[in-house]
Amino acid sequence: MNRKMVFYTCGQMLLLEAVLLFLPLISSFMFGESCAWAFMITIGISAALGVVVMALSKPDTTVIYSREGFVITALSWLILSAVGALPFVISGEIPSYVDAFFETVSGFTTTGASILTDLESMSRGLLLWRSFTHWVGGMGILVLVMAVLPMTTDRSIHIMRAEMPGPVVGKLVPRVRQTAKILYIIYIILTVSEIIMLLAGGMSLFEAAVHAFGTAGTGGFGIKSDSIASYSPYIQWVMTAFMIIFAANFNLYYLILIKRFKSILSSEELWVYLGIIVFSVTAVSLNIHALYPTVGETVRHAAFQVMTVMSTSGFATTDFNLWPQFSKSLLFILMLIGGCAGSTAGGLKISRAVMLFKSGRRELKKMLHPRSVSSIRLEGKSVEDSTVSSVGVYFAFFAALQLMFFLLISFEPFDFETKVTSVVACFNNVGPGLGAVGPAGNYAAYTDFSKILLSIAMLFGRLEIYPIIFLLSPSVWKKKV
Amino acid sequence: MNRKMVFYTCGQMLLLEAVLLFLPLISSFMFGESCAWAFMITIGISAALGVVVMALSKPDTTVIYSREGFVITALSWLILSAVGALPFVISGEIPSYVDAFFETVSGFTTTGASILTDLESMSRGLLLWRSFTHWVGGMGILVLVMAVLPMTTDRSIHIMRAEMPGPVVGKLVPRVRQTAKILYIIYIILTVSEIIMLLAGGMSLFEAAVHAFGTAGTGGFGIKSDSIASYSPYIQWVMTAFMIIFAANFNLYYLILIKRFKSILSSEELWVYLGIIVFSVTAVSLNIHALYPTVGETVRHAAFQVMTVMSTSGFATTDFNLWPQFSKSLLFILMLIGGCAGSTAGGLKISRAVMLFKSGRRELKKMLHPRSVSSIRLEGKSVEDSTVSSVGVYFAFFAALQLMFFLLISFEPFDFETKVTSVVACFNNVGPGLGAVGPAGNYAAYTDFSKILLSIAMLFGRLEIYPIIFLLSPSVWKKKV
Repeated sequence: MNRKMVFYTCGQMLLLEAVLLFLPLISSFMFGESCAWAFMITIGISAALGVVVMALSKPDTTVIYSREGFVITALSWLILSAVGALPFVISGEIPSYVDAFFETVSGFTTTGASILTDLESMSRGLLLWRSFTHWVGGMGILVLVMAVLPMTTDRSIHIMRAEMPGPVVGKLVPRVRQTAKILYIIYIILTVSEIIMLLAGGMSLFEAAVHAFGTAGTGGFGIKSDSIASYSPYIQWVMTAFMIIFAANFNLYYLILIKRFKSILSSEELWVYLGIIVFSVTAVSLNIHALYPTVGETVRHAAFQVMTVMSTSGFATTDFNLWPQFSKSLLFILMLIGGCAGSTAGGLKISRAVMLFKSGRRELKKMLHPRSVSSIRLEGKSVEDSTVSSVGVYFAFFAALQLMFFLLISFEPFDFETKVTSVVACFNNVGPGLGAVGPAGNYAAYTDFSKILLSIAMLFGRLEIYPIIFLLSPSVWKKKV
Repeated sequence: MNRKMVFYTCGQMLLLEAVLLFLPLISSFMFGESCAWAFMITIGISAALGVVVMALSKPDTTVIYSREGFVITALSWLILSAVGALPFVISGEIPSYVDAFFETVSGFTTTGASILTDLESMSRGLLLWRSFTHWVGGMGILVLVMAVLPMTTDRSIHIMRAEMPGPVVGKLVPRVRQTAKILYIIYIILTVSEIIMLLAGGMSLFEAAVHAFGTAGTGGFGIKSDSIASYSPYIQWVMTAFMIIFAANFNLYYLILIKRFKSILSSEELWVYLGIIVFSVTAVSLNIHALYPTVGETVRHAAFQVMTVMSTSGFATTDFNLWPQFSKSLLFILMLIGGCAGSTAGGLKISRAVMLFKSGRRELKKMLHPRSVSSIRLEGKSVEDSTVSSVGVYFAFFAALQLMFFLLISFEPFDFETKVTSVVACFNNVGPGLGAVGPAGNYAAYTDFSKILLSIAMLFGRLEIYPIIFLLSPSVWKKKV
């Protein structure tokens, strides 16, 4: 493996993080908050570390292969989280480093699971940083680097593949760097649109930015203990709409940019996605209608909660842990499915679910007609058999890893529901689960061991499993391949 | 589809059931119990129905294909359960037909989930019938027919494939009928051995037969509310040993018969199976050691409970619902894995888990070396790619169906743990789960809707999904293919 190139890129990442930290630093100054110091120190550490690492690991060759792509991705995310946690600790607002690390991983992976019990007492600079990590992690940190820096390698597709969610990574345009730029431009346009809509609803710029970052990255960190419950119905509907937008495949927005509207309407994944939303909102509305005075309120809460879970954001306008069992079970299943491929959402992804469904149908057909040969088609194109079987394998990893995390977390004294949904909510980057980790609860009561475990689960989920496995495989690190 | 042949075979099944019912009938006479009447009436109904159905559907051709194989299997199991439930209702000992149906499906599918709250008040004839259904269902009803009747079709491999568990059905010898006979001979030898060992431990013939039937089919129905808890350690160890034996692949016993001992030792599935047992017993023992006075007792309870869950039997020597969370979580995962292919156990099956593991490993390799080509080997033979991908698809069905059942059962007021483990315990034919359906609880409190739902789940699990799907597909029933 080209180790020097791996470390060199991690060094670049640290420099990038130093730059990113200027946003919360500046706002701390503007708010006159003392946590500005914490940001300044962290920027110093991050920049110095980045420069040293880069100087020590000047690579002989910039060529990288898929193994380097995976390891660079996994390691960058770990390092950024480790350093990004420092402002919380230095400012003293989250005294335990493990807690701060959990919170930062939860931020970058757009999970939104929190150990904070009193959000209202946090300084605004730190709250902004927390939500900003969602925004950066949503589209991908390395994709950002590709978009803004002249990449030192011509093989950056390997990094993009490792960081972008979905079974097939499509380059929108032939050049990777151009694709990364287009994605970020779309991302920025959409985020700014949401900020404007939220400002129109009476939010301050700070509030609008925090919530737009959280929605864009489908993260879920807010600034109030009751999440979005105390905001107006207008704000709640705006956020619902943007959760639908950010959990859809970004390729669709590129198609809008280049005016290929027909291709959008023929997107299978989109229709399945919208179908699941309509079905779930209807089912939940019917199930919870007795809890709310009007139909409007019922549908609003149903739609918000369905989208918060399906887009794996994790906001809440009401404590869905108190809903009837059927709605809770449905939300639990939506957590596992997640949003579309090529979006900022987590979970298994709709396109994978569709492919599994289609291979199931093909299997049934093959049993009745053993000699029949048929290929699976998705979005009008026939999918290679190796991709179909890769999706099956991914699903097996997906299930096995969550069961493993569930087993390891069992040393905690919580009930079955809390433990199962903790793992599912972290692995699928949702955030809140059910039981003690429901929308009204948090992860503070877990031991350090479990907090680290769940942080790893979040990284597994966000980076779609493989990068973390390779990071932990000694054989991948061998100098000679 | 050759519908007449399907119904004709179901008619044969009913005649067979009439014959099987003679065992509990005779014992009722011997015990001087009034439930003998219930058996006589049921025998009459079953025989008459069988003769009528066979007369009405004399097939023009006995040729069947895989679709008929699946539908015959699914329908036979449904009909046998529907009729097999009658003695409970007619005798008045289970007044509700839905309850009796649940209990009988639970018997034939070797699940062992019960709605009975007072086992000690049941007549012995009915208890014997209940456990006898385990024995018949364990190896397969249609396999039994093949072994004893001159099959009217030369395509019975299609039926065997549909009824025998495991990813690949191997005929031991070229002729299907011969294979069925050998399997049943092994099955009888092992069952009789267990009866003798249990008699040696001081059980009455009735008790020994009931428990040997339950172990052989990996079912789990007993005759006491505390299951096996009040029996001697000797009895408990004997049953543990036989659960290990009956959840192993029966091909191994055939290899013993033909003295190919070397092939046994090289069986990958066997070693993985034993490895999981040793690991689980050790882990559980360490976790529960504080609950029991001696090391011997700790290991005995750990071994018994691990095997009861892994073999998907469902007996208990202690209420494992009261164990620490880690042990409960481990047992929960073992429920999903189940025993070996080609055994009477349920669950996903070890060989499928091994294949998924190997395809995961291959996927990782392929990511680092995209041009590498490697095939998966199992038991020394290379497995076809289509079989590997079939296992992936099976796993997807396995997960999706259990989630679906979980969603449907959510209308019940039980807690999350009870609902999840009800579905998992029924689908994987274990029987008791955790929470309200733990070893000390039962399924009596569920509504009729859920009891029928869970009965279907048991059939899905025992017949490995596909037969039930085809039974419910109108297109499969079309006269012309």
